[in-house]
Amino acid sequence: MTAPQRCDLLRARRLGVDTYREPVVFLRSDSPVCRAEGFRAMSRVQLSAGGRSVVATLNVVLDGIVDRCEAGLSEAAWLALGAAEGCLVEVSHPEPVESFSAVRSKIYGCRFDTAALHAIVRDVAAGRYSSIELAAFVTACAGKDMSMEETLALTRAMVDTGTRLSWNQRIVLDKHCVGGLPGNRTTPIVVAIVAACGLTIPKTSSRAITSPAGTADTMEMLAPVSLTLEHMRRVVEREGGCVVWGGAMALSPVDDILIQIERPLNFDSEAQLAASVISKKLAAGATHLLIDLPVGPTAKVRSSGDAQALTLLLQRLGEAVGISVRTVQTDGLQPVGRGIGPALEAADVLDVMQGRPGAPEDLRNRALLLAGTLLEMGGRSPLGMGESLAAQVLYSGDAWRKFQAICAAQGGMRVPPVAAHRCEITAIRAGRVSAIDNRRLANLAKLAGAPLAPAAGLRLAVRGGDYVERGAPLYCLHAQSSGELEYASAYACAHPDIIRIEETR
Amino acid sequence: MTAPQRCDLLRARRLGVDTYREPVVFLRSDSPVCRAEGFRAMSRVQLSAGGRSVVATLNVVLDGIVDRCEAGLSEAAWLALGAAEGCLVEVSHPEPVESFSAVRSKIYGCRFDTAALHAIVRDVAAGRYSSIELAAFVTACAGKDMSMEETLALTRAMVDTGTRLSWNQRIVLDKHCVGGLPGNRTTPIVVAIVAACGLTIPKTSSRAITSPAGTADTMEMLAPVSLTLEHMRRVVEREGGCVVWGGAMALSPVDDILIQIERPLNFDSEAQLAASVISKKLAAGATHLLIDLPVGPTAKVRSSGDAQALTLLLQRLGEAVGISVRTVQTDGLQPVGRGIGPALEAADVLDVMQGRPGAPEDLRNRALLLAGTLLEMGGRSPLGMGESLAAQVLYSGDAWRKFQAICAAQGGMRVPPVAAHRCEITAIRAGRVSAIDNRRLANLAKLAGAPLAPAAGLRLAVRGGDYVERGAPLYCLHAQSSGELEYASAYACAHPDIIRIEETR
Repeated sequence: MTAPQRCDLLRARRLGVDTYREPVVFLRSDSPVCRAEGFRAMSRVQLSAGGRSVVATLNVVLDGIVDRCEAGLSEAAWLALGAAEGCLVEVSHPEPVESFSAVRSKIYGCRFDTAALHAIVRDVAAGRYSSIELAAFVTACAGKDMSMEETLALTRAMVDTGTRLSWNQRIVLDKHCVGGLPGNRTTPIVVAIVAACGLTIPKTSSRAITSPAGTADTMEMLAPVSLTLEHMRRVVEREGGCVVWGGAMALSPVDDILIQIERPLNFDSEAQLAASVISKKLAAGATHLLIDLPVGPTAKVRSSGDAQALTLLLQRLGEAVGISVRTVQTDGLQPVGRGIGPALEAADVLDVMQGRPGAPEDLRNRALLLAGTLLEMGGRSPLGMGESLAAQVLYSGDAWRKFQAICAAQGGMRVPPVAAHRCEITAIRAGRVSAIDNRRLANLAKLAGAPLAPAAGLRLAVRGGDYVERGAPLYCLHAQSSGELEYASAYACAHPDIIRIEETR
Repeated sequence: MTAPQRCDLLRARRLGVDTYREPVVFLRSDSPVCRAEGFRAMSRVQLSAGGRSVVATLNVVLDGIVDRCEAGLSEAAWLALGAAEGCLVEVSHPEPVESFSAVRSKIYGCRFDTAALHAIVRDVAAGRYSSIELAAFVTACAGKDMSMEETLALTRAMVDTGTRLSWNQRIVLDKHCVGGLPGNRTTPIVVAIVAACGLTIPKTSSRAITSPAGTADTMEMLAPVSLTLEHMRRVVEREGGCVVWGGAMALSPVDDILIQIERPLNFDSEAQLAASVISKKLAAGATHLLIDLPVGPTAKVRSSGDAQALTLLLQRLGEAVGISVRTVQTDGLQPVGRGIGPALEAADVLDVMQGRPGAPEDLRNRALLLAGTLLEMGGRSPLGMGESLAAQVLYSGDAWRKFQAICAAQGGMRVPPVAAHRCEITAIRAGRVSAIDNRRLANLAKLAGAPLAPAAGLRLAVRGGDYVERGAPLYCLHAQSSGELEYASAYACAHPDIIRIEETR
């Protein structure tokens, strides 16, 4: 192997390392380019190949993994460059990010102007901000000092960097839930009821990021969700509604980037939350938006007062961009429904829509509240009467028929898979269910294989407050392989207090 | 190979990947622990082994590099755990960092209290803050709204987390330079002059981070610098001064961590700069501190007014912790001396100290200004007379004798190495030197091998404003291998305008 002629040209190698959105390049410490340019571990370097370029973080390899003439690329770097194995990659110092000077000014007390926010959002969209620069921007936008004008400019800039859908309808409904609850799969039911009443609701949903199932994962058990924009449009034109995966649509892609930084920092900034929600829904073409605000001491929205303040901001921001916003406060204390995992949650949805005996009441009641409010917003029902109209549409079977039609239009209704391997976890003593550890239940479902193994997860046999006998079933683990079932049941045995039972006297 | 019994136990493997201070762990996407705990790329995970633990960033490996039962560790993770090849590592969710809630409060407009700043600094020292959390903290501390009390509490907290030196002297002198210039190696000369006058100046210096040489690298050409604390103490007790590497002393280690985040964000926060300098010098036991402020349009301090404001803050902070602070403004426009690279800069230092003809005047004059001011601060000279006393001590040979004694005490005086491979770069036209590209000159010295190859670098034959004939030498590249010399000379030929020559008419 001879070295490339120029010391800044290296051969690309795909390392198969997932660093999420952050492009990473692995270079040898003794490579000529590291020595010449003074690159050190964690330097930001610009990679260019075939007319494309990306700014990456440098990991320095002391030996092994890559050789002196190679640039090892993480998946994000590889895909951004559209690289081919062995193609030549130029490594250089990145241009300074001009727009970051506005972030510095904001930190020193100036306001963002509209042009600055657009420049920042463009650079973020182009991947030119490092994660620490993103963290500084997010921090500068947090706190109480983002004005309405700044929040509005940020929202508009985020919409301008992505795809924007438009529908030939006077009223386009949408819904959103702030801070999800396990099993809270109201969306397919709400869409079916609302569309059955002749309204338009083109719903895009997300897949699981850290949970055992996202709404798109659950819906995928019942119909295809990875639709092209054109296919989605045909579904909505014919049936009035859809439930598809939004990830492929690139609606407000900068929002997706910022969320990855905001989430671990746990900044409950109203301005950011409002800009995030409104930009996504504006890009999706909504005119009327219903926001579900689960309220509880451990939920994202802590109190009714916080919910009211957030509602006011969302409504003012919505008004400025032409979206009519309503919110409903719901119970943010406990999970909804019985199943956790894509197929098991889909089963709950089907039970509610088909009106099966034993269908989870909490899921049904939430869906009716949300659908009823949307029917009022869409002018199908007088104020205060929406919920009973929604119930009528559900109980008559009209919602179920509409849902089947939507699934057929999305590519064909599916029957959710059933797991081959199951294991019942039973009560080690008699007593009352006093607490359910939602986080550990979610871990258990993931250990059993969810969401990658879609039939995996668990199904609760009890709810908080129930009285159980010793040896009575608490929940049933579902897995697609015996190995995963073993892992999950070992974890369940190691944590017998996931469902806490207090002896009664 | 059998899998470990528990799915959260993996075998450690050292990957030889340098990610600077950020511990990184490489886990397979199909490893049981990733699935069970829901870890995704860039998750923060806690690694524990043999009673030690560290929080690391997760890179997910799709295949190759590590197997399903292995945890591949970056150098920072490997060293923090004190791991051995194949030992079992437990992988879990990290505890939430409680102290970060004070950062959130600060962002929302509250003041830091002393206890909160101590808790934050303790957690940062323990490696519990991710780089985006560090960026948020640094951002929250930037801007104009850190009060004197907050800056003081931050300074004290940083000192409390590291080693603190103490000297049995009423006056302990120290010097610091804000924003270095290439070749600005006044320190060995200043220490020699000041110690020769019977004052105490225990100087710790840093190695190069992104430059071709740090003061410690240059001094290492003349004497050992990696001294233990006890050895350093013996040198100072005997000779009154030393020039040693501060890296091993762990003086204000949190400052080292914060600088790595502040530098790429380029936050010129006075509070951070002041806390950084004063905490380091307080930890080093200084009572009187002289700060060199190079001022220039591209330097860290842009104007004389900025220098005055910074001086005031440094003096107030110094007063609060018992350090008397003086500053001098120096020329921040061009490099100092002729050599760039450890041995070549050491040669400049020797030329000045031995009073050789042709010794660089700019280096000598800066050293005399700084040493003279320190002699005044230490009470050895009336105000305004220090510089002439310093000159007397230098020209008499007393400084050179003291320097030899210090080098002997540090482990023996050394003769700087001389590079075997050299290449003269000559003027491609006649004219006047109108500009010197300092950044590219530094790159060239690094490409030639500096600072790892200590004899490598370059030696300037001209200065700005000089008239040169066509073919006259501009600078001479020095390298320890012919390959490095080739890389450097190819770079020099590709960039003929590193030293710009304007034809005169």
